[in-house]
Amino acid sequence: MGSAIADVAARAGVSKATASRALSGKGYVATATRQRVVDAAKEIGFVASPNAASLVTGRTKNIGVVIPFISHWFFGAILEGIEEALLGRGYDMTLYNLRPGSVDRDRVFDFFLARKRFDGVIAIGVEPTAEEAGRLLRLGIPMISIGAPVAGIRSLTIDDVRAARLATEHLLGLGHRNIMHIGGVITGDDDQTVNGQRLTGYRQAMVAAGLGGEMRAAQAVMSVPGGYDAGTHALSDPTLRPTAVFAACDEVAIGVMIAARRIGIRVPDDLSVIGIDGHDYAEMFSLTTIEQKPRLQGQSAVTDLLEAVSGEPAAVEVVEMPARLVVRASTAPARIRADAV
Amino acid sequence: MGSAIADVAARAGVSKATASRALSGKGYVATATRQRVVDAAKEIGFVASPNAASLVTGRTKNIGVVIPFISHWFFGAILEGIEEALLGRGYDMTLYNLRPGSVDRDRVFDFFLARKRFDGVIAIGVEPTAEEAGRLLRLGIPMISIGAPVAGIRSLTIDDVRAARLATEHLLGLGHRNIMHIGGVITGDDDQTVNGQRLTGYRQAMVAAGLGGEMRAAQAVMSVPGGYDAGTHALSDPTLRPTAVFAACDEVAIGVMIAARRIGIRVPDDLSVIGIDGHDYAEMFSLTTIEQKPRLQGQSAVTDLLEAVSGEPAAVEVVEMPARLVVRASTAPARIRADAV
Repeated sequence: MGSAIADVAARAGVSKATASRALSGKGYVATATRQRVVDAAKEIGFVASPNAASLVTGRTKNIGVVIPFISHWFFGAILEGIEEALLGRGYDMTLYNLRPGSVDRDRVFDFFLARKRFDGVIAIGVEPTAEEAGRLLRLGIPMISIGAPVAGIRSLTIDDVRAARLATEHLLGLGHRNIMHIGGVITGDDDQTVNGQRLTGYRQAMVAAGLGGEMRAAQAVMSVPGGYDAGTHALSDPTLRPTAVFAACDEVAIGVMIAARRIGIRVPDDLSVIGIDGHDYAEMFSLTTIEQKPRLQGQSAVTDLLEAVSGEPAAVEVVEMPARLVVRASTAPARIRADAV
Repeated sequence: MGSAIADVAARAGVSKATASRALSGKGYVATATRQRVVDAAKEIGFVASPNAASLVTGRTKNIGVVIPFISHWFFGAILEGIEEALLGRGYDMTLYNLRPGSVDRDRVFDFFLARKRFDGVIAIGVEPTAEEAGRLLRLGIPMISIGAPVAGIRSLTIDDVRAARLATEHLLGLGHRNIMHIGGVITGDDDQTVNGQRLTGYRQAMVAAGLGGEMRAAQAVMSVPGGYDAGTHALSDPTLRPTAVFAACDEVAIGVMIAARRIGIRVPDDLSVIGIDGHDYAEMFSLTTIEQKPRLQGQSAVTDLLEAVSGEPAAVEVVEMPARLVVRASTAPARIRADAV
């Protein structure tokens, strides 16, 4: 970093010390000289060292973002929303990929986040353990969570129970009774993760329809290939085949549709499929879904976080983000099966 | 940031000044006291201010990464490779989403990169203009490019001309003559971008096969829906339909396959499709492709960059990364058409 100030000084025809004084605003420099230095700095794109500046202001103009997956569409779309909003406000974004169950997880909490290079942190779908959440809070800097609510942290999230109920009720409303849920890995009875909440919504809708005894849930890796594998397994036996699938996310729903086509099951004639997300591919696959707005979630998180950074924190509460049913051609009324008449 | 050192001091039962001396290693502190402070810092996850540290060492332990898309699989996979490698070496990653043709583009070059918060920069698929490349070089910090070579910067890339020739030759070897290329937007005759290089490879192979007069190329948005749209257009007229498509990337290839299925064209019976990338979905779609390794490219970039940061820069040259033909079921021998006999 020393060479940049030397470049500015050389270009302005002054000493390094003078250039430094002119840019820092500390100490006397003649007005004309200061202007020459500022112009030179501008010409070569030099900005006074942010490290020196942040020691004075206590601000880093940098936001840390913690995310479980980068190469998944949904998380990538949230990231794009965050990055665009931060860039517009002059902030950098430092990114940590906190893989579920990874050995790196401890390192990120212990070392990287503890460096406190940030004015604030956005945690996306991280689903921290109670201990990890405590460590986040002890950092003592503004924080926003996107996804499943985290205790003690302002959380932006869709109502996942309601979204899953809405999806299941759409299928029930079309006359389906044999509805299978294909979702993510569930860790226990009272699972508060996004996957757990979506299973709960499916259960609530099925029980309310008097189908508590007909529930069937399978687990899948939350990706198109994961949905393809789970769909292939779930649809292969004609005697056990559901007439409708509620997939916990659009990628799984798309995988199920591809599996159905391979097996020769027509969507929606023989099988209705609904997902959650509003994936970029949903239109192309004519996928009925509960659409949420990941880019908007990212932008909203930045707005709330930067208010907190500037000393006006919003309440620590769960903020419900919009989600709505978008009906396309992957769902249709249940047919009365010949063998059931 | 002041409060963290106060927390450490309070926990260790010493003054802030003593805690600060103990952690910085500057000035005298009794051994037992120093140990108490270090233990307290460890307990609350405090790491001495990197801003203060970097003013002394001139290092930020932070790498800037510039990328045109986040929510595209290929770029996300490179990012994951970079992030994992940086984390393992104790580096942060600050991410800039430099959209092609975006108004933010100037801001990133003028302001964010010029802040020089980084020990180095990795530019992924940025395809800078000559002027932008000049600005990058003037930053005067170590830099690596992934994707189309950038003059003056060490570049990791597959040989895109060769990859495209390989893909086209695979189709030619199967007896196809009516081969269409569906690629990205081309900006001119001597286009050195990835898209331009892949079109060049297609041309070379077609001309070498005596089919210079039979070339047909269409442009698509480089995504699955982009390939779907271009495929729908290219395949709709049976009299003009190609028997094989070489798509410039796997996402476009997958979109073309989905379009073919919708229209009722069987892959590979009626249409062979080949892509480039080795997408996570390629296996599921049985897609023949020229496979490259984006995560490996990300890791290699980190290795080379950090050597340059530590003062041992590798040569400024174009380093060819591995790419190989992987044959799956989306390509098959051309059938002799009834109407052509």
